[in-house]
Amino acid sequence: MSRQRIVMKFGGTSVADTDRIKAVALRVKRETDAGHEVAVVVSAMAGVTNQLVAWTRAVATLHDAREYDAVVATGEQVTSGLLAIALQELGVPARSWFGWQIPVETDDAHGKARIRNIPTAELSRRMADGQVAVVAGFQGLGPDNRVTTLGRGGSDTSAVALAAALKADRCDIFTDVDGVYTTDPRIVAKARKLDKITYEEMLEMASLGAKVLQIRSVEMAMKHHVRLQVLSSFEDKPGTLVVDEDEIVEHEVVSGITYSRDEAKITLQRVPDRPGVAAAIFGPLADASINVDMIVQNVSEGGGTTDLTFTVTKGDLDRAMKVLGDRRGELNYKALVPDANVVKVSVIGMGMRSHAGVAQRMFKALSEKGINIQVISTSEIKVSVLIAEEYAELAVRSLHTAYGLDAA
Amino acid sequence: MSRQRIVMKFGGTSVADTDRIKAVALRVKRETDAGHEVAVVVSAMAGVTNQLVAWTRAVATLHDAREYDAVVATGEQVTSGLLAIALQELGVPARSWFGWQIPVETDDAHGKARIRNIPTAELSRRMADGQVAVVAGFQGLGPDNRVTTLGRGGSDTSAVALAAALKADRCDIFTDVDGVYTTDPRIVAKARKLDKITYEEMLEMASLGAKVLQIRSVEMAMKHHVRLQVLSSFEDKPGTLVVDEDEIVEHEVVSGITYSRDEAKITLQRVPDRPGVAAAIFGPLADASINVDMIVQNVSEGGGTTDLTFTVTKGDLDRAMKVLGDRRGELNYKALVPDANVVKVSVIGMGMRSHAGVAQRMFKALSEKGINIQVISTSEIKVSVLIAEEYAELAVRSLHTAYGLDAA
Repeated sequence: MSRQRIVMKFGGTSVADTDRIKAVALRVKRETDAGHEVAVVVSAMAGVTNQLVAWTRAVATLHDAREYDAVVATGEQVTSGLLAIALQELGVPARSWFGWQIPVETDDAHGKARIRNIPTAELSRRMADGQVAVVAGFQGLGPDNRVTTLGRGGSDTSAVALAAALKADRCDIFTDVDGVYTTDPRIVAKARKLDKITYEEMLEMASLGAKVLQIRSVEMAMKHHVRLQVLSSFEDKPGTLVVDEDEIVEHEVVSGITYSRDEAKITLQRVPDRPGVAAAIFGPLADASINVDMIVQNVSEGGGTTDLTFTVTKGDLDRAMKVLGDRRGELNYKALVPDANVVKVSVIGMGMRSHAGVAQRMFKALSEKGINIQVISTSEIKVSVLIAEEYAELAVRSLHTAYGLDAA
Repeated sequence: MSRQRIVMKFGGTSVADTDRIKAVALRVKRETDAGHEVAVVVSAMAGVTNQLVAWTRAVATLHDAREYDAVVATGEQVTSGLLAIALQELGVPARSWFGWQIPVETDDAHGKARIRNIPTAELSRRMADGQVAVVAGFQGLGPDNRVTTLGRGGSDTSAVALAAALKADRCDIFTDVDGVYTTDPRIVAKARKLDKITYEEMLEMASLGAKVLQIRSVEMAMKHHVRLQVLSSFEDKPGTLVVDEDEIVEHEVVSGITYSRDEAKITLQRVPDRPGVAAAIFGPLADASINVDMIVQNVSEGGGTTDLTFTVTKGDLDRAMKVLGDRRGELNYKALVPDANVVKVSVIGMGMRSHAGVAQRMFKALSEKGINIQVISTSEIKVSVLIAEEYAELAVRSLHTAYGLDAA
């Protein structure tokens, strides 16, 4: 195999203690032994970030985001120094890089900064010389010369951005799962690990609750055509590749079933059916920073009124009810009905675009189990339905079988 | 009182947890409320540095000093961010500064770097605007653009160097003791806190075992005429000022009695008394990085041999014995006798220079208690004697009384 340039990212559980850090060093050494150029991106040791966050909160409930970043970014710095030492101990040339040293240039949105640029001349030169770059993830340098952080889970984004800047052949994300599955293996014992999946499918899965990768990192990988691999840091076997569509020869129609319990439904009964009513409802919700997901407006059956249903996250339900309750006079609905006992189940697949009947198969499978569909929404590669929460596992299992995803 | 510029330094026990950090913020606020410009230098929270050091050791016994610095310096960074938050919470404008941000420019001696320069234009401007600079102590930026540390206890040095660069009116070192005492209060109940002491005396005290201030920080304060104050972070009362000699109107003859148990004595019996013998003995010890402290060579009583006695630290005793044992043939001594059961007791005072009989009073006081003096060495402001370790407390108490230092 020819010499490759690889970015390897290890999350908090993979570097939880010094023994794990030594194990990571051995894993990295396998790549350098094979002649590859390697940059490693590390998270804070499991628990360290929580401790740092707890300290900032103990000092003040509301705190300067710049100081929060200054404190919290130290966790990744510790890991990068320790891993550099562990690699050197194995005879692998290595050095740590903090965000400000490279620098990973970000905007000034402290606590949720976005990466603007990563100059890589020096890193590239050293990597070509055989030195492993051990980069502290999750952090960068703002235009104010202060430490920024990319938000929780931002180390995935650090790794993908670095892989893009370094024009790496692959970005391996080591996690505590061994890949992306057709659905949650805790619910469906016959769930299968996928060998490959497209960025688009991964994005839908991530936004629908699969916690494997941070959404922003997948978006960035898609934009820069970074070949991602999700794999286990504890087992030695291939994971799931997240790649461009053209790398996948034959698509299955559906590649995954996801579910999200973090949904709540609100119905406005008998709203006057006139132009501007949707704006009058969703404008105030947007002003209150409440994200609305699925929206269904029934055709009105005469009488000049309509029922309007939409979903928000469970955490936003009370605030959304208050916003709309306060506007009852203006909106003139008959009743405002919340329902938190719902789950959103989705089928995802690139193949949907060229296959008819995918949605129909979903409706039929749910119907055969007597599951009532409350709301439906579709996109190019996804069909989502809202159902009563008690049917969540039954629905996911039925769909997994219906689309032929069960392992042999 | 006119507006002053003050550097305040808080050590690890003063910032041991978030409650202590809040207490420090209140203490700092008193100075800003009084209209003063303040920079604060902080150590890592007690225990944090030890944890970081333990991690580096768990990964590898021998490790790259640059990576060690990268890991260990994070402790002070955490404290500086937290204290900035605590100050803001009290309505005091503040921001954290890491070594690389100011930058505190050092040489590249990682793990024991020396400060070369601290540009203060930006700090000064902000302090004049009322913003408290919360500086992470113990760290700097090397010429290789990497984090350096100044060695254990280096936060004192950070504070003094910053005070010198900022031309501060005073550098307050907050510790877990409330000042510098005439002697160790654990041994002498009647020990008195000194209001003022000269740099020279403080240096002798520090090098003789008083742990109040790091020696380098005192040297630096002396060189740059920084007025140091050692005071308690837990009690609200004046501490001890360490100042230039001309600030002290009338010197006591002796200002302090110190002792050090970290001494060991080696005697070479009947070494040939010829030119070059001292070089032949101490050259190999210096080559082995063994520091020799007191040296006494007795006048030879005919026969062409002499006895030569010197002291090393207890930690170096075994190595020193081996170095000299290996050279027995060359050095041609009759016997090599180690003795670790010794203590060095010293009386220190600027007034010694203008008062006769200070040493004599010491010898007399010890003699009256039946304490035999093994080795004597003197400097301009100090007389030290080596005695059997069992007499340590008795000697210190006797001398404290003999020089009139006992509190009323």
